[in-house]
Amino acid sequence: MLILSDIIRVTKSSVAGAILRRDPAPIREMAERARAAGANVIDINAGPLSRDPQGTMSFLVRAVEDAAPLPVCLDTANPVAMEAGLAAARNGRAVVNGVSLEPAKFDAIAPIAARHGALVVAYLLRADGLVPPDAAGRLAAAAELFARLTDAGVAPERILFDPVCPPLIWQDGPAQAREVLETVRLLPEVLGYPARTLVGLSNLTTGAGPRDKKILLQSAFLSMLAAQGLTAVLLDTDLTPVVQAARAASLLQSGSVFCWESL
Amino acid sequence: MLILSDIIRVTKSSVAGAILRRDPAPIREMAERARAAGANVIDINAGPLSRDPQGTMSFLVRAVEDAAPLPVCLDTANPVAMEAGLAAARNGRAVVNGVSLEPAKFDAIAPIAARHGALVVAYLLRADGLVPPDAAGRLAAAAELFARLTDAGVAPERILFDPVCPPLIWQDGPAQAREVLETVRLLPEVLGYPARTLVGLSNLTTGAGPRDKKILLQSAFLSMLAAQGLTAVLLDTDLTPVVQAARAASLLQSGSVFCWESL
Repeated sequence: MLILSDIIRVTKSSVAGAILRRDPAPIREMAERARAAGANVIDINAGPLSRDPQGTMSFLVRAVEDAAPLPVCLDTANPVAMEAGLAAARNGRAVVNGVSLEPAKFDAIAPIAARHGALVVAYLLRADGLVPPDAAGRLAAAAELFARLTDAGVAPERILFDPVCPPLIWQDGPAQAREVLETVRLLPEVLGYPARTLVGLSNLTTGAGPRDKKILLQSAFLSMLAAQGLTAVLLDTDLTPVVQAARAASLLQSGSVFCWESL
Repeated sequence: MLILSDIIRVTKSSVAGAILRRDPAPIREMAERARAAGANVIDINAGPLSRDPQGTMSFLVRAVEDAAPLPVCLDTANPVAMEAGLAAARNGRAVVNGVSLEPAKFDAIAPIAARHGALVVAYLLRADGLVPPDAAGRLAAAAELFARLTDAGVAPERILFDPVCPPLIWQDGPAQAREVLETVRLLPEVLGYPARTLVGLSNLTTGAGPRDKKILLQSAFLSMLAAQGLTAVLLDTDLTPVVQAARAASLLQSGSVFCWESL
């Protein structure tokens, strides 16, 4: 299972401050920490970037790549920032995060992903941007996104379908969590293709709550997702026990030869 | 998910000593500890009981039931001990652990389970006692056990199918672990009945190994089993983080309303 770190987010004051001051040090430190924790890819959640999208995204990509020899994942709805991030990224390659059936989002981002041959995260949302209530709604969105992305020139193996993990504190959060499991399990069969999947795990425990219980819930849900064949997970690599759970689940998922040292 | 505690085992010197001296104190202490940790049922792994099977099993059942108001699970291949355990148990009820297609085991234990209307653990082993190499072999054993147990008078809802968790240190351990997941998932469909399942989790990490990594692997595998619909787990309730993982997985499995306090 591929691990993407979500610790670099513009909503953190340290990240926002680093951007304002154009100070790469805090960003580099986070990227190094994510790499040391076991991340395979580093997500840069840059937000809408209404001011200087190009300069800011280039700055962020360079700061991360200088500190960690890992691919970056560009998490922004701003197409100008997305282009700038891809231009700045090593070999011009980065994960594009992401598209959905929301017309503005799809039309702005899908052509960029296609042109760069990038991996692209496809959110299984409805065209109005809402989360479908069940697996059937997510699978329908996946079928439509699959058709539209391949039509737009994205290769099927470059798509990472994200069934959108619900916060458990939603009224129907736990029921929705089961629908997400079902979606991950059924997706390859429904699409008739060994579709790859990504889940953003931090969202499960959004809101106030004890850290130890967040770790327990995220670890359990991640293993449940792994049992359904999940390809990749975006998580908070500062939660070391969750990364350890990801490793244990990966080992059990892969069926490869066991040794204690590989954990 | 139902939690059965496996901490009372005759292979522990404290348990063997308590049996020899007919001293209930160590057994009572373990039963109380298992209850406090969150066990719903307390397994008594009494071994073959070649000496005084009746007296020993009655002693063990009384010691456990005096300390914890929970059902017991009688883990012995000795039919005399099994009868004595059921006679000693509160209301004459206990889980019978267990039967398999091994002729001697089936013929000795199945009639007892049927006569007492007890829950019975059905191990998905081959008739020669070996673990089947894959899910297909386990499912075939389940179909035969289902037919033979119901023929013997055991009600379908009283059967707990155990797909036999492999030690990861077996050469094909991790691959077998995936076959166990597949067995749990497919069993209701194959039997055409909402079959209940039990897995003995401690077996996964049999052998020498660091305690923290055993906890990681057991927790991850248990959540993976929960995602496939596991009904019950037999585990070491002294491994508190594994019990916590069981609670988290149960909550996510049930889809019930979420609150932090229920964890």
